[in-house]
Amino acid sequence: MGNTVKRLAILGSTGSIGQQTLEVVRALPHRFHIVGLAAGKNIGLLTKQINEFKPRFVYCQSAKAHPANAEYEPLSLEEIACHPEVDTVVIATSGKSGLRPTLAAVKAGKTVALANKESLVMAGEIITKEAKLNAARILPVDSEHSAIWQCLNGETQPAAQLILTASGGPFRHYSPTQLKEVTAKQALKHPTWQMGSKVTIDSATLMNKGLEVIEAHWLFDTPYDHITILIHPQSIIHSMVEFIDGSIKALLSYPDMRLPIQYALSYPERLSNPQLPRLDWSCINNLTFEPPDLDAFPCLKLAIEAGEKGGTYPSVLCAADEIAVEFFLSQRIKFTDIPNLIEQTLEQHQAIVHPTLEEIIAADAWARDKVMQLINGDNV
Amino acid sequence: MGNTVKRLAILGSTGSIGQQTLEVVRALPHRFHIVGLAAGKNIGLLTKQINEFKPRFVYCQSAKAHPANAEYEPLSLEEIACHPEVDTVVIATSGKSGLRPTLAAVKAGKTVALANKESLVMAGEIITKEAKLNAARILPVDSEHSAIWQCLNGETQPAAQLILTASGGPFRHYSPTQLKEVTAKQALKHPTWQMGSKVTIDSATLMNKGLEVIEAHWLFDTPYDHITILIHPQSIIHSMVEFIDGSIKALLSYPDMRLPIQYALSYPERLSNPQLPRLDWSCINNLTFEPPDLDAFPCLKLAIEAGEKGGTYPSVLCAADEIAVEFFLSQRIKFTDIPNLIEQTLEQHQAIVHPTLEEIIAADAWARDKVMQLINGDNV
Repeated sequence: MGNTVKRLAILGSTGSIGQQTLEVVRALPHRFHIVGLAAGKNIGLLTKQINEFKPRFVYCQSAKAHPANAEYEPLSLEEIACHPEVDTVVIATSGKSGLRPTLAAVKAGKTVALANKESLVMAGEIITKEAKLNAARILPVDSEHSAIWQCLNGETQPAAQLILTASGGPFRHYSPTQLKEVTAKQALKHPTWQMGSKVTIDSATLMNKGLEVIEAHWLFDTPYDHITILIHPQSIIHSMVEFIDGSIKALLSYPDMRLPIQYALSYPERLSNPQLPRLDWSCINNLTFEPPDLDAFPCLKLAIEAGEKGGTYPSVLCAADEIAVEFFLSQRIKFTDIPNLIEQTLEQHQAIVHPTLEEIIAADAWARDKVMQLINGDNV
Repeated sequence: MGNTVKRLAILGSTGSIGQQTLEVVRALPHRFHIVGLAAGKNIGLLTKQINEFKPRFVYCQSAKAHPANAEYEPLSLEEIACHPEVDTVVIATSGKSGLRPTLAAVKAGKTVALANKESLVMAGEIITKEAKLNAARILPVDSEHSAIWQCLNGETQPAAQLILTASGGPFRHYSPTQLKEVTAKQALKHPTWQMGSKVTIDSATLMNKGLEVIEAHWLFDTPYDHITILIHPQSIIHSMVEFIDGSIKALLSYPDMRLPIQYALSYPERLSNPQLPRLDWSCINNLTFEPPDLDAFPCLKLAIEAGEKGGTYPSVLCAADEIAVEFFLSQRIKFTDIPNLIEQTLEQHQAIVHPTLEEIIAADAWARDKVMQLINGDNV
């Protein structure tokens, strides 16, 4: 394996995963080299990152942000994702903006470290097919999928069951009445993980876990009825795999995204990184488990159903959720309106079974409009 | 992989592990075929096993037990262990009787499913060297070592730490005064595992875990300071491996020896066996962990020290423990006399650094005599 330096492009470098990816690179500069950075609107942070890591290629959503004397080449997200000088593309953008670059990267046969959930949720069929055709590797960055991937490593037979663990979020055991009164501020306080605001709200509604079920389905080619959710509030076991003999493998660590990020970057090697915390067993005296409450958290059920139905349903799910979460964060709807809006949008959707990318994107646009209509029409 | 039938010899077929191995074979008759059985004194059960499984080769400690019209060939333990018609030798004998057949099997390049702890504890250096020379595989049957082996599967780098879990036995949290009054009957009631009486007492003193540390050292070529013991009373996590990036893999199942036995037999495949229990997460709501109490259970410390010193010390440890446990079971010494006797024996031993097999066996004999002297001289 030696000390080869991997050339990385990070799409979404100013987001939570992007920043933590750069922390890993900073800790292991002899192993990783940043050749591409891409960000949305946080130009201040992107400029700092450019000055520190001196990438050859940069994308920024507001094109005028590039200075005239830039020492890098401005490229589009897709151009960076499939550039010959890039070994691994980290897709850390949020929402559907990860879709096209992910597809470009797998078509170019790249190794893709995938943190963006929407890519596989919306277009899992297309992306996994193209990855296979072009011998591209999709390596999960999500802690749950990284855990499953690591537990499957070395096994020669498919899993009998994937057990996705979930912290349960900040409102575990809340009554329906309590859930109605939940504020954005409360929902943004995740008990175990530090994440961006969209994914933190998705964790509170359990939508995040539902999206992970769909993602796991595509990543590990596993039928939905072989994927189970288990609430594990301590977030020490990041997920598990049950094999046909009944043995279960689990992956454990403190909840710290830098660990699965680093593994996706260093795979198949593991690297020692003194900045990563090691489990202190004298502090871990109690790991608990309980089934998820599908009645109190209907988003989980909606997501699994959308995944099972397939076609354009998962795109509609994602889009409706994104808009609903936005409205909840700006305090224009209640926490419990989120699943209601998504459910109504899904119900009204005329799905396409094996959609093209364009049809997926059209379904996404339709769903965004539909949620807005529902909210504005006060139909919630 | 197909449906090849593996030809098995079980040395120690009437003991606890031997009987459970036959249960696995009975459940999967299309995958395993018994060609050899060997037992000590339980002629009644051995005869039943011979009638059911019709092995070609049989060893029985009392040679006159073989009927004149036997349809099998009487062979020695070593002859069975290295017979060309045997694919996998299950070493399930207790105590030092496993030593010579294990050595014979590895010298013959066999696959050895090793349940006998003493072989590696007493002669780990010789056995692992011969296994390497003859491309023999030693596959662990102990649940802890099987867990570690499975967690290492697919990994390309050595472990940072092996974490051997221990139930803590029936006397966890007992005070020194309480431990003095412990009876054999109490000690034979293990909270989570069904095992033979010697290993059950060794579990109560934690000597069993100490022997497992030495075994893990040899099986996984891991320095002693990279092996940790963690008390986990529920016996659901069977052991863990920590890697250099801080990730930890764990193997989980109900405590049932048939599972690690089957995995050693079926490796690299896993087989579905409806008789094996599957974890029911609705019943598992609490996994706890605590450090071992080395003061209350000095056997653990004695074993690790003997392992670290190496040479003939581990043989002396095993032999002294075997005699002490025998005397405790027949109510001639107290529970707390067991570590005292072992410690005195180890202290008086003149060790040999890289012993031959003969020197190992001589150290064993010396230790047995020494413990008897200590007991009879009332020096405890």
